[in-house]
Amino acid sequence: MTASTPIVILGATGAVGREVLHILSSRGVCASRIRALASERSVGTNIPYAHECVVVREVAPREFEGASLAIFAGSADLSKRWAPIALEHRVTVIDNSSAFRLDHSVPLVVPEINADVLTNAHATARANATRAARLIANPNCSTILLLVALGPLRRAFGIRRIDVATYQAVSGAGLEAIDELHTQARASLVGAGASSSPRVFKEPCAFNVFSHDSAVNLSDGTNGEERKIIDESRKIWNDPALRITPTCVRVPVVRAHTMAVTVELSQPAREHELRAALEHAPGVSFVDDRANNAFPTPLKASGQDKVLVGRLRPDPCEPPDSNGRHTRFCLLLAGDQLRKGAATNAVQIADLIGAIQHPPAAPPSMRARGAQEH
Amino acid sequence: MTASTPIVILGATGAVGREVLHILSSRGVCASRIRALASERSVGTNIPYAHECVVVREVAPREFEGASLAIFAGSADLSKRWAPIALEHRVTVIDNSSAFRLDHSVPLVVPEINADVLTNAHATARANATRAARLIANPNCSTILLLVALGPLRRAFGIRRIDVATYQAVSGAGLEAIDELHTQARASLVGAGASSSPRVFKEPCAFNVFSHDSAVNLSDGTNGEERKIIDESRKIWNDPALRITPTCVRVPVVRAHTMAVTVELSQPAREHELRAALEHAPGVSFVDDRANNAFPTPLKASGQDKVLVGRLRPDPCEPPDSNGRHTRFCLLLAGDQLRKGAATNAVQIADLIGAIQHPPAAPPSMRARGAQEH
Repeated sequence: MTASTPIVILGATGAVGREVLHILSSRGVCASRIRALASERSVGTNIPYAHECVVVREVAPREFEGASLAIFAGSADLSKRWAPIALEHRVTVIDNSSAFRLDHSVPLVVPEINADVLTNAHATARANATRAARLIANPNCSTILLLVALGPLRRAFGIRRIDVATYQAVSGAGLEAIDELHTQARASLVGAGASSSPRVFKEPCAFNVFSHDSAVNLSDGTNGEERKIIDESRKIWNDPALRITPTCVRVPVVRAHTMAVTVELSQPAREHELRAALEHAPGVSFVDDRANNAFPTPLKASGQDKVLVGRLRPDPCEPPDSNGRHTRFCLLLAGDQLRKGAATNAVQIADLIGAIQHPPAAPPSMRARGAQEH
Repeated sequence: MTASTPIVILGATGAVGREVLHILSSRGVCASRIRALASERSVGTNIPYAHECVVVREVAPREFEGASLAIFAGSADLSKRWAPIALEHRVTVIDNSSAFRLDHSVPLVVPEINADVLTNAHATARANATRAARLIANPNCSTILLLVALGPLRRAFGIRRIDVATYQAVSGAGLEAIDELHTQARASLVGAGASSSPRVFKEPCAFNVFSHDSAVNLSDGTNGEERKIIDESRKIWNDPALRITPTCVRVPVVRAHTMAVTVELSQPAREHELRAALEHAPGVSFVDDRANNAFPTPLKASGQDKVLVGRLRPDPCEPPDSNGRHTRFCLLLAGDQLRKGAATNAVQIADLIGAIQHPPAAPPSMRARGAQEH
C-alpha cells in the first residue's frame, strides 16, 4: 500500500462515516483517494470534503479493487456482508460495527490501550500469513472512552471493580436521532410535546432521559450497550474476569457521551498519584477545577479527540488508610463518541498499521505524548 | 389545631411553594386557610388556588399568629430567620430547606422510611413538652427519592453499600432554571447557542450535562448535593457508617430526577424477591418491562407522587451463588423532586402529625398500601 491507493469508506453518509471523511480531509488525504460508499438510497449524495465534494457510490465488489484500506462505518449486517469481499481483495478492513468485535481471530483495538496486539511480532507475522489479521475491529464508543480514561489507572494501580453510569448522546443512534431530538425539543418548547411521536427511540428524547435503547436481555436484564462494554473491555484488557457493572442511559445531548465512574483499585493510592497518572495519560485531557465547578461536559468534549476526565475524588465513605491512600475513587469523563469513540480511533488504527501513509505517522493523540500503554 | 386554622406557606412563589399550594388545593384545603408568604419583591403576586387565587403577602411575625402549621419552601437563610419566630408562635414548622436537617433535635422524615420518629410515644411526649419537636425537616429531594426506592430492600435484605449516579432536573435549582433551559434550548435550535450565556448555572444546560452546580468541597472533592445525600441518608436510616457513594449530575430535564443505582445487599437474595419487595413497597411504582424497554423516566415520573423503580437486575459480573442468589443489584429510579422529593413529602409529614385536619388522614401513598417501613 502506498500514500496514493484508494481508501474505501463504507457507510459514508452516516454519523460516523461523515466524521471519518472529515478527519481524513483534515489529514490532507486527497479527495481522489476516497471511495465513499453507501447503500442504494444514498447513491449520488455529495459529501463536502475539504474544498471539494465526494460523490457517494453504491457498494459493489469492484469498489474494493486496488484499495489498501476500507473503514466500515455502517451496520453490523453491512459489515458481515462486505468484509469477506474486501478481504478477498486484500483490503485491510477497520470495522466500526459490532460484527466481528468478539471474534477471537480479530483484534479489537484502542491504540492507547492495546496497540501491541497490532504491532508485536506475532501479530505482524500473522497479518502477513493470513487474511484474518487484516480485519481489525473498532470497539463500541462507550468502551473506547471508558478504557482511555481508566487505562492509566489500571496500568499504575490495577483495577478490581468498575461501576459506570452513562449519559449517552442521541447521535450514537445515528443522524436521524439528532433530528428527532431537535424536532421534539421544538415541539415541546411551543407546548406541543405530545404531538411529536418518537420514531428512532421508543421514549421521548427531548427533556427526558431513558434507559439505553438497545435490546434488553430478557433473562438477565442487561441491555446490548451494557453487554458490549462488559465483553469488549474484557477482551481489550485481556481480563475475562474483569468486574465492570454498567448502566447505560440516553440523555438529550446531541453529541459526546458522559460517564460517572467509581473504580476500585487493586492497590491503594493517593489522590495526587491518580491525578498525575491521568494528567500524563495518552488521549486524556484532565479537566478538574473544584473552585470553579468546572469539570468534563459533553459540550466541552464535542469535536475533541481527547477524552476529558475530571471530578477525581476518593469515595467519601471510605476513610483513607494510615498512609492517606484510598482504594475507591470516583470520576467523571466526557468524550466525543463520533470522534475518539469511533472515527478517530479507526483512523488511529489505520495509522498504527501504516494504512494511510507509509511510513505511518503517529496518531495525533500519541504524537503529543510519545507514550503508550502496553 | 383544627381543620380551619391557617396554614402558612413561606416561599409560596417558588417551585416547591407552588407545588405545596397545588397539593393543598387538590386536598380540598380552603383558600381562606392559606397564608402565602414570600419576600418583599413577590408581594401582591396572585397564585391560582383551586378556582380562586391567593395573594402573596410579605413575611412578618404577625402572619404566624393563630396558625397551626407552616411549610417553609424557601432558602435555608429564610428558614433560619423565620423558624424561631414561627416556633415562638407555637406553629409547627415543616422545613424544606437544609437549615435544620442535621440538627440532632430536629426529626428528618421520609414517612415511608422513618415515620416512627414522629409517631412513637417518646417523640410525641417531647413534642408536647418542648418546642424543638415542632420543627420537622424535609430531606433533600434526591435523598427522599433514593430512600423510598431502597427502603424496602434495606428492610428485607439489609444494605452494605450504595453507588448512585444522578440525572437531576434543572428545576431543582428553581423556576429560573427552567427558563434558562428553555431559553438556551431555543437559542441552540436556531443556531445561536453561544449567544445565550448561563445565569443560574455556570455551564450551559440545554443539550448538555454537567456535574451538579452545588459548591465542591475543595479538600475532598464532594459537592454539596452529594454531601446531603450521604449525611441525610445516614441520619434517616440511623446508620452513621452507611456506605453511600453518590455522583450528582444535572441533565436538561425540566422536572423529576433519575438515578442509576447499584446496591450491595447484606444478605444475598433472588431477583424475584427484590421484585416482590419493590412491587409491594409504599410510595413505589414498579416499572419494569424488559421486552418493550419500558423503564422509569423523568417524563413518566413528572407530576406523580410515587417513585418509579425498575430495570432491576443482578450485577451481570457477579455469578449467583448455588441457590441462585446475588448480593449486588442494579436499578433505575425516577421521581418528581418537586412532588415526592419536596412538597408531597412535606404534606405527608403534616398528615402524620395531624396538622392539616384532625384526626389525620393517611397520606395518599400510604392509604393505598396500608404499610409502612419502621
